[in-house]
Amino acid sequence: MENKNIKVGIIGATGYGGIGLIELLINHPFATIEALMDKYNIGKSISEIYPHLRGFCDLPILDVSDANCPDDFDVVFYATPDGVGQKDARKRLQKNIKVIDYSGDFRFSDQDSYALYAERIGKPTKHVDPDLLPSSTYGLPELYREKIAVSNLVGNPGCFAASCIIGIAPALKSGLVDTDDIIFDAKSGVSGAGKIPSPTSHFPARHESMNAYKVTNHQHVYEIERELTILCDKKVEITFTPHVVPISRGIISTIYANTLSKVDMGILRGAYDNMYSKEPFIRVFSQGEILSTSDVRCSNFCNISLNLDPRTGKLIVLSVIDNLLKGQAGNALQNMNIMMGIQETAGLMNPGKFP
Amino acid sequence: MENKNIKVGIIGATGYGGIGLIELLINHPFATIEALMDKYNIGKSISEIYPHLRGFCDLPILDVSDANCPDDFDVVFYATPDGVGQKDARKRLQKNIKVIDYSGDFRFSDQDSYALYAERIGKPTKHVDPDLLPSSTYGLPELYREKIAVSNLVGNPGCFAASCIIGIAPALKSGLVDTDDIIFDAKSGVSGAGKIPSPTSHFPARHESMNAYKVTNHQHVYEIERELTILCDKKVEITFTPHVVPISRGIISTIYANTLSKVDMGILRGAYDNMYSKEPFIRVFSQGEILSTSDVRCSNFCNISLNLDPRTGKLIVLSVIDNLLKGQAGNALQNMNIMMGIQETAGLMNPGKFP
Amino acid sequence: MENKNIKVGIIGATGYGGIGLIELLINHPFATIEALMDKYNIGKSISEIYPHLRGFCDLPILDVSDANCPDDFDVVFYATPDGVGQKDARKRLQKNIKVIDYSGDFRFSDQDSYALYAERIGKPTKHVDPDLLPSSTYGLPELYREKIAVSNLVGNPGCFAASCIIGIAPALKSGLVDTDDIIFDAKSGVSGAGKIPSPTSHFPARHESMNAYKVTNHQHVYEIERELTILCDKKVEITFTPHVVPISRGIISTIYANTLSKVDMGILRGAYDNMYSKEPFIRVFSQGEILSTSDVRCSNFCNISLNLDPRTGKLIVLSVIDNLLKGQAGNALQNMNIMMGIQETAGLMNPGKFP
Amino acid sequence: MENKNIKVGIIGATGYGGIGLIELLINHPFATIEALMDKYNIGKSISEIYPHLRGFCDLPILDVSDANCPDDFDVVFYATPDGVGQKDARKRLQKNIKVIDYSGDFRFSDQDSYALYAERIGKPTKHVDPDLLPSSTYGLPELYREKIAVSNLVGNPGCFAASCIIGIAPALKSGLVDTDDIIFDAKSGVSGAGKIPSPTSHFPARHESMNAYKVTNHQHVYEIERELTILCDKKVEITFTPHVVPISRGIISTIYANTLSKVDMGILRGAYDNMYSKEPFIRVFSQGEILSTSDVRCSNFCNISLNLDPRTGKLIVLSVIDNLLKGQAGNALQNMNIMMGIQETAGLMNPGKFP
Repeated sequence: MENKNIKVGIIGATGYGGIGLIELLINHPFATIEALMDKYNIGKSISEIYPHLRGFCDLPILDVSDANCPDDFDVVFYATPDGVGQKDARKRLQKNIKVIDYSGDFRFSDQDSYALYAERIGKPTKHVDPDLLPSSTYGLPELYREKIAVSNLVGNPGCFAASCIIGIAPALKSGLVDTDDIIFDAKSGVSGAGKIPSPTSHFPARHESMNAYKVTNHQHVYEIERELTILCDKKVEITFTPHVVPISRGIISTIYANTLSKVDMGILRGAYDNMYSKEPFIRVFSQGEILSTSDVRCSNFCNISLNLDPRTGKLIVLSVIDNLLKGQAGNALQNMNIMMGIQETAGLMNPGKFP
Repeated sequence: MENKNIKVGIIGATGYGGIGLIELLINHPFATIEALMDKYNIGKSISEIYPHLRGFCDLPILDVSDANCPDDFDVVFYATPDGVGQKDARKRLQKNIKVIDYSGDFRFSDQDSYALYAERIGKPTKHVDPDLLPSSTYGLPELYREKIAVSNLVGNPGCFAASCIIGIAPALKSGLVDTDDIIFDAKSGVSGAGKIPSPTSHFPARHESMNAYKVTNHQHVYEIERELTILCDKKVEITFTPHVVPISRGIISTIYANTLSKVDMGILRGAYDNMYSKEPFIRVFSQGEILSTSDVRCSNFCNISLNLDPRTGKLIVLSVIDNLLKGQAGNALQNMNIMMGIQETAGLMNPGKFP
Repeated sequence: MENKNIKVGIIGATGYGGIGLIELLINHPFATIEALMDKYNIGKSISEIYPHLRGFCDLPILDVSDANCPDDFDVVFYATPDGVGQKDARKRLQKNIKVIDYSGDFRFSDQDSYALYAERIGKPTKHVDPDLLPSSTYGLPELYREKIAVSNLVGNPGCFAASCIIGIAPALKSGLVDTDDIIFDAKSGVSGAGKIPSPTSHFPARHESMNAYKVTNHQHVYEIERELTILCDKKVEITFTPHVVPISRGIISTIYANTLSKVDMGILRGAYDNMYSKEPFIRVFSQGEILSTSDVRCSNFCNISLNLDPRTGKLIVLSVIDNLLKGQAGNALQNMNIMMGIQETAGLMNPGKFP
Repeated sequence: MENKNIKVGIIGATGYGGIGLIELLINHPFATIEALMDKYNIGKSISEIYPHLRGFCDLPILDVSDANCPDDFDVVFYATPDGVGQKDARKRLQKNIKVIDYSGDFRFSDQDSYALYAERIGKPTKHVDPDLLPSSTYGLPELYREKIAVSNLVGNPGCFAASCIIGIAPALKSGLVDTDDIIFDAKSGVSGAGKIPSPTSHFPARHESMNAYKVTNHQHVYEIERELTILCDKKVEITFTPHVVPISRGIISTIYANTLSKVDMGILRGAYDNMYSKEPFIRVFSQGEILSTSDVRCSNFCNISLNLDPRTGKLIVLSVIDNLLKGQAGNALQNMNIMMGIQETAGLMNPGKFP
């Protein structure tokens, strides 16, 4: 019935970022998965690894390093860690394939910004293909929809960064808060760390446990600071503390900022409504409404609430996403839809399931 | 684009059974939710109660007892507990509205069978409208597809019963196991008990705890026994032990039966493939493959594996469903599709999301 | 062997606060549970309600309103909600029974402070027995050990308050941080809400969900502000945001404060070591060490780490407790030990169990 | 105060079996941990790895292969996987050190029984030191207390085996059930697989998932069959299906057996009471009482309930333990107490904590 003529290739298909995309594309009205590629599980069917896909997608995993791998795509997703896409993107772009990368490889448009980030994650600070950086676009549609639409190379945001930037952007853009002391206290589900087992994701150790980690030291700081700096045209330094809690999916970023004098809830709400009322995946809630991660679980939405402390003038924004969707695969697909000129919400209008 | 001309009414819209149906109908190609009715939360929007629906379905909850409630439906779902549908179904049927009931009210086609069940659940054993019973159909498509297609009144199976009956039916139908000593050891997620909080569903008490309950005494025994008796045309008495484990969604029924002599895996597999290979929502797996509830979470599938103990001849069937979908709303929608003569899988072909 | 001659009565024995105390007293070397009293479950054995106690404590629940209830205690715990202890404490005190109350009834030493708190929790702002307030002691041993030792009436701290105050007290006492902008972002397990089931503690709704609640509006604000004000002898107004996460036990309070100029980690650590190095239940960790709630689960410890952001001078303190022990029953027992002049750690030196 | 003169060495100290023992020994009245040994984490303090122990036990991990490792113990625990203890036990025994081994190395008293087991777990079927086997004792105090008391070498039972054998032993010993068709449907928490992370224990994959595994094929089958065969002096073949559910600690074994004619609940209960009424760690419950894993969490108890189906004569026994205590470290310590001639319950009389 539908004309599913957008050909998609996925590199890193067997990770959580890949599987999330596969799940979405299965029911996408205009796109077809042409090939699944990875370094691992070569030759296996994706549905052997993820049995819930049996009958929906039984494609084999192809060896991404194999020169005979198909390459007739309209768009390729690098659902891969830092350092993979930057080595490989140019050859796709040269074949007029659009590229969407999940890692930090194309989130920064210049070497210096990238270097700060790369140092923090322990990678060589020199980008392999720095000439691509200026043409890359930061893939947050709420900020860069027009640029994304004409871009061939998009760096999909980090999950924490997406929730933090969306949460505070209107207040900064409208100049309603002090830019000097913004605090992001973020709580994430465990899937944010990917599918590789580790002691901190071992069920018995995690089931009844939460903790902060990388305090003062998380790599998403630079991504957030860069975007906030652009937004208010002034150097912003933030405080960011990530925590991990025993849920699979979901991020709450609790954002603290000091409002400037005479800023009240009406003004705040106006700024957020102005920026977000037409956004298909942002829902703004009022003070006092409870926002739970389960309200966005398995959907591409970001729920936001604004809370103003009348005693102290402190603005407390809650920004809630599913880290694997608006924080990863869902947002990446939203970018693809924009880049391909089709309906932005195609394949994404699903409320999730409760409970 | 699509012709969404099947008009649906939902009674008991705010329970887990109602919300599950709403989530499915939002993206159903041929059906529209016309009205949400309940005894509780009258006047509220469904998306106030379930914020994940905001923007997808914001219908108000109407008072089901209000005579002015709309009644122009093609099909009405009673997503209600025992005793509700039997009081009300006749008036819908008289208006040529098809009825699908979630409770035990229409799972039995005669008074005596119903009475046994009703006694077990502590209800008056006399059905309010017994003349409807003979025309009701047990809503398990894998057994009664043809009857369902021409029925106006369907009793949707219990969640445990669905997994148990599907799991053992081919072996019984083909006469491969001893009918005298079949054991169903069933494990369910907590959502099976519905949305009303109770001490046994209180998070701190449940999070690190599992238990058996109603040992020798669960009401689904009769529903299972009746269907198995019909299947093998011989009175069957079973052993059924339900357990509750700390997941939200999912049932594993581990089924033990003694194979008759000369029955081997080839014969068993043949019987299951024969009955299920064309079923859209049954997937049969081989001995040794791991079946997890997460493989069917948020989908309408039933995954089954056959395991034969070479030492003892014991058949061990694992039957896995999402209790809220194949065990409830998903199966109910499958019934609707069959009753309305549309594609049986409409609105249901979703693999769920992992993790 | 031991001389278990301290006679204890527990009012509100069947709630989480009561049961936590019973578990500790069972193995206490010097105390004996004389009577369990409550408004609920009268006549039942405590081990019928909590089967893990069978053989350890099988005492019956006595009706607390019954005049014949035994009253020959050395100490009585009110493991009860707000409003109970204040009606009843005087008559115990008159019999030379020491009183430890879990609620806010005796956490404030004057009517005005109490009134602010009471208004926030929706109680009548007039205390029933205000003349007792000046003689009550705030039961945080780390601040008031000497006063507690000579007090007959102790108000046990709120769980959030305990973690927050312990976490920031040394920095404030030593004048190392700006008192004007301290933020407490607190995350609690679900048992903090007690044992009464509610929609927000219903397992299916909570299992894969976290949320903030009472943003800008939680009652513990006043308790924390009062103690911080006393500590730095200057009115302190704070920002406090509680969150609930799906674990049973545990609180992490992430505390943000701006250090004054020239304050470095050495100075900070010195202040904390100075105040806490001899505390039996406080363990101070270094920047970079991971603090998990599971490290204090089922123990009376508070784990603290100090983190200083070199870029911004922001102090980030993590303060971690088990809300049911250092946040409730464990701290209450510590108070009893101090009040009775026995070893402060008696019955409390247990590391908990991992995982 | 106490005379803690039993010197204990622990090999494999950093696994869950080791840490469980350390937690118990910290408060043991008569024993002291002399040395912690392992192949991993050499030189680290145990409290670096497990911060909850800081201040309770800060011993360093010694290299078990180092010849200079201390060896002045009264008892050594091998909290190690299969194949370790059998290589090493003789040299301890020769120094008059009593040995308790957690693995299958000393659970079988002859080569042939061991070989069946070893083949199932994929180990060489020849025991390294078979001459030790006849002198080893199966460490289930409820069956072999007298032998354990005079033994120097004890093989601690498998966790599943402990719960299964305890659950059915009285019925078999008294000849009340058919020995030909006993089914053990066992459900375990994730800690049963130890502390090494794996895909099946990865939090996101496990949190909302349960599954059966090793159906017809689990290695504990032989251990259970051997003990049941001894108990009823007749070869017993069983059906055993293990499942893993998302809790950290706890096993429920649901046991199905056909009662012989004229066996009623009174007779059954008599057999269980006769065998267990004086057992310090067995609690027998009545039909209809709910047994939850949380009732034995963090305690050494085994809770059992007897349920008889009046329609079919099927006996359904529920047997519930904490797999890390009665299923491992707790039972091992119980064995040590018996072997050392001290009070059997020393260090073990703790009800655990709820919730």
